[in-house]
Amino acid sequence: MFLSKLDSLQNALKLISDNQKFTDAEEISIHDAHKRVLAEDIMAYHDSPPFDKSAMDGFAVIAENTFGASQSAPKQLKIIDAIGAGDFTEKTVGDGEAITIATGAPIPDGANAVLMKEYTTNDGDDLTIYSQVTPGENVSPKAEDIKKGEKILDKNTFIRYQELGLIASAGYDKVKVFKKPRVKVIITGNELVEPTKDEIDKAKIINSNQFTIKAMIEDSGAIADICHAGDTFEEVKEAILEASKTHDVIMTTGGTAISKGDVVLDVVDDIGEILFHGVAIRPGKPAGAGIANGKMIFTFSGQPVAAMSQFDMFARKYLFEMQGRFFDFKIVQRVSQLKIPSQLGRTDFIRAVSDEEYAKHVLNRGSGIIRSMVEANSYIIIDENDEGYQKDDIVNVVFFDSLLW
Amino acid sequence: MFLSKLDSLQNALKLISDNQKFTDAEEISIHDAHKRVLAEDIMAYHDSPPFDKSAMDGFAVIAENTFGASQSAPKQLKIIDAIGAGDFTEKTVGDGEAITIATGAPIPDGANAVLMKEYTTNDGDDLTIYSQVTPGENVSPKAEDIKKGEKILDKNTFIRYQELGLIASAGYDKVKVFKKPRVKVIITGNELVEPTKDEIDKAKIINSNQFTIKAMIEDSGAIADICHAGDTFEEVKEAILEASKTHDVIMTTGGTAISKGDVVLDVVDDIGEILFHGVAIRPGKPAGAGIANGKMIFTFSGQPVAAMSQFDMFARKYLFEMQGRFFDFKIVQRVSQLKIPSQLGRTDFIRAVSDEEYAKHVLNRGSGIIRSMVEANSYIIIDENDEGYQKDDIVNVVFFDSLLW
Repeated sequence: MFLSKLDSLQNALKLISDNQKFTDAEEISIHDAHKRVLAEDIMAYHDSPPFDKSAMDGFAVIAENTFGASQSAPKQLKIIDAIGAGDFTEKTVGDGEAITIATGAPIPDGANAVLMKEYTTNDGDDLTIYSQVTPGENVSPKAEDIKKGEKILDKNTFIRYQELGLIASAGYDKVKVFKKPRVKVIITGNELVEPTKDEIDKAKIINSNQFTIKAMIEDSGAIADICHAGDTFEEVKEAILEASKTHDVIMTTGGTAISKGDVVLDVVDDIGEILFHGVAIRPGKPAGAGIANGKMIFTFSGQPVAAMSQFDMFARKYLFEMQGRFFDFKIVQRVSQLKIPSQLGRTDFIRAVSDEEYAKHVLNRGSGIIRSMVEANSYIIIDENDEGYQKDDIVNVVFFDSLLW
Repeated sequence: MFLSKLDSLQNALKLISDNQKFTDAEEISIHDAHKRVLAEDIMAYHDSPPFDKSAMDGFAVIAENTFGASQSAPKQLKIIDAIGAGDFTEKTVGDGEAITIATGAPIPDGANAVLMKEYTTNDGDDLTIYSQVTPGENVSPKAEDIKKGEKILDKNTFIRYQELGLIASAGYDKVKVFKKPRVKVIITGNELVEPTKDEIDKAKIINSNQFTIKAMIEDSGAIADICHAGDTFEEVKEAILEASKTHDVIMTTGGTAISKGDVVLDVVDDIGEILFHGVAIRPGKPAGAGIANGKMIFTFSGQPVAAMSQFDMFARKYLFEMQGRFFDFKIVQRVSQLKIPSQLGRTDFIRAVSDEEYAKHVLNRGSGIIRSMVEANSYIIIDENDEGYQKDDIVNVVFFDSLLW
């Protein structure tokens, strides 16, 4: 593999975007819908609240009857009934009358306000009030939150806890959402072994990418299955072919083997189509993508930091948008605390520690240094048309937190 | 209940903090450790990489042997062996010699650099090189990421995907983390029914808090079990007593009943201790907290928005810190696009739509209006010592995203 003709990041992203696939919708219980993406508009089946509702424990009254009441000039009303939450009355509040009412109960006919219990005393049915209320006071009007028949949420909305509450209030016990993409991660590399405290065989290395990439996939709303394949063409081919039948997306890490170039890309070329291979980025230049059996394949580096950055650059947006959720880097501006060299014609994603004002890049940029990602909370992104920045220059920053599902 | 003596928010938070409990540690598989919190320091069992490692496919060489080589002045070396990933050689690279090497393989004795395959041609064992390399080039030195025996992560670290990779690289197949708190949510209210598209009985209201509060608990790293209790003292007492034996934290919503004051607080007072009841905040004034059977009980409003805000003010920090993760509001400054009235002596959490520069509060502040939380992405927090702000004043903002686990 000779990366002489590197694609620009922009071009690579366009090739991915042109091949964006979407998952089907599925109907699930509202109990499981947190952090899913709506595959239907939400139309309200009910008004919410469904009636003029008391917002306080107290007395449903005619506001005008209370005017002028105060601690020094109390007024008298007659209690004619009581309504608990979940209950209602057929009675009507008339002049000089009141009905005891609980928070959440429907305002009875005739009444137009609720006087809080705290501002009253009573002796049997004789109520003394020490405060006045205005019409509508302590009443949550019918349909103030949701009007029956109205569209309250659009398809493609991400369901946070507040949307979840709204959907329930609208009467949905089930909801249509986009299925979570199933991603097969094929880790290649004969040198890789599982984590162990025991001494590791000579020339072997612990396979950490399986953990980071799986976690990143989960942080993109998707489901990851991991497998390990050796470095041979046949092993990789078999794994990719199988995954292309069972999964929505395939990702590989590593895959280089002596004198064979990049075995993973050779396989993609053999069974499908390479979209690009080699991108003018740092870290992660050998990133590639392709299509096999209609499924997107991302081929990432075996170097841990390169693989993480490649995931952020290429795979996150694909996984988000596959399930109907818009994704773009939330770029913010910060003051660079250090000079940052870069190279024209290459886009750099530089690990950095940033706050509300400043960005300071992590100096050790080696693409195998996981600790540089651990130290960092953000990328400084340097465009291919920039040659780098001086100390105190304004730079573009993306926080890792803003990338998460 | 007469909320005449409202606690300040600060005082209420101190009472909670004084009663902070912590979950025990548990040892889990590294496969399950994403988004958990370390309950132990991580000490490296291995160097990473465990040897000087080739970062490229190419030839392990003595860098000095390549000096001067170029496209127009190629040099000749002799290939004496080949090392695949996961493999190693006993041979030593001598003057004029090279060993074919794969990415990830250990650099053989004698060699100090790797020349990329792309800059070579070969005819059997005769290697022609068209470029030079410096000592150390394309070599990831032993232990550049992790040194054996070194502490690489502290107890109480939150495990993002990058920490997960680092822990695996350090040799951990299991890791000690804090247990997730188990939270029992007791939804009170005789008026509440499950979501349904069918017509709802008169005086009944859909129970949406069960969904929002459960999702907020999950967004705080904890596990939620929901139950529903009627409004009577006995029902609520039984539910709280039972939960205090089976769960780490209890939360209630609603709980008002005619002429009985706040039945939930009456129960807490009966079986345990009330820490506070009534806080000078908006929304959510009737918020309370207490202790029963050694377990923290948060008593939230039945009004959806009030309940969400109370959760953010009181419960999030408690749940985060219970499992060893530090929490504080990440307050940022923004320019208010509207005038915001407030009241001295009360802390306001005002729903707002904010961006990198501005904050604009949602005008409908009703504590039952879930849509105001759906519209919003942040709170504007107005301190009890402030009387509000004018348009273009700088205000304190907390983004909802920054509150999540």
